[in-house]
Amino acid sequence: MKNHVFIATSLDGYIADIEEKLDWLPTSDVGDLGYEKFIESIDAIVMGKMTFETVLGFGGEWPYDKHIFVLSTSLKTVPEKLQEKVTLLKGTVQEILNTIHTKGFYNLYIDGGKTVQNFLKDDLIDELRITTIPVVLGDGIPLFDVLSTSLEFKHLKTEIFLNELVQSHYVRK
Amino acid sequence: MKNHVFIATSLDGYIADIEEKLDWLPTSDVGDLGYEKFIESIDAIVMGKMTFETVLGFGGEWPYDKHIFVLSTSLKTVPEKLQEKVTLLKGTVQEILNTIHTKGFYNLYIDGGKTVQNFLKDDLIDELRITTIPVVLGDGIPLFDVLSTSLEFKHLKTEIFLNELVQSHYVRK
Repeated sequence: MKNHVFIATSLDGYIADIEEKLDWLPTSDVGDLGYEKFIESIDAIVMGKMTFETVLGFGGEWPYDKHIFVLSTSLKTVPEKLQEKVTLLKGTVQEILNTIHTKGFYNLYIDGGKTVQNFLKDDLIDELRITTIPVVLGDGIPLFDVLSTSLEFKHLKTEIFLNELVQSHYVRK
Repeated sequence: MKNHVFIATSLDGYIADIEEKLDWLPTSDVGDLGYEKFIESIDAIVMGKMTFETVLGFGGEWPYDKHIFVLSTSLKTVPEKLQEKVTLLKGTVQEILNTIHTKGFYNLYIDGGKTVQNFLKDDLIDELRITTIPVVLGDGIPLFDVLSTSLEFKHLKTEIFLNELVQSHYVRK
């Protein structure tokens, strides 16, 4: 029963630039950065409304095999073709987790800045895989928000992709 | 003629915690993280008043062999025993750099959050060596500040110390 983050950030800790675009992320030849292997180990994905709508906005095939839990107080329905694949939830992080666990999903991919931040506030992130892109964006959507206590992690391993991207894997101590 | 940053940050990008303490930095057995080799390649160190006063506050032997330029509009004098070793400067970043270059110092270690931020705002940082400590501090003094444009870097290499600290070396593209 673990909550995982798998995300890319700029050197200055942004997961999207100020226009919420992702075009600073490397796309060519970089491979999947271990994403396929990671996602195989996951039971379901938890994301906020903003990430969900960003993915919907990409159009084309729905990219996820895993069940998606979207945290939103405002969304009432999901597109019909996704009704088997997407569940809307609201409540506290702990309530949401209880609901998801009750449905039989235990290893969760926590995605999106706000959602990761809310889980970190309750010390509910067990593993962090952070890929650092060698750019200082200057502004944008930050991965981390202010917390009332510090959280120690243990470094498991670091991989370098194309001598450009640094991916470090941490587990909560 | 290059400006270098050599600094440690938390996973959430802080160089000191909210009380400006550094006790979350690893101290035991970690070695110098390449600091000696780095500092040998440097002609002088540029720091802000806050970093200068922090180092003064440590007491004991003055820790630097290299000449120190302290950027401050308020400091008028330095302790007498440091008058050969420390020069106070004020002005814009470019004025300060011109003064330092005129004195024959070209490869500079730019230290301290505010000073690094001011150099980044003028795109005057050539190399970044950032050591990431596996802790989410939650709050503190950030390494990076908002910039009006993004800055691309090239990853040169990453070293892992004690399977705990991840040090990446970047150069400006």
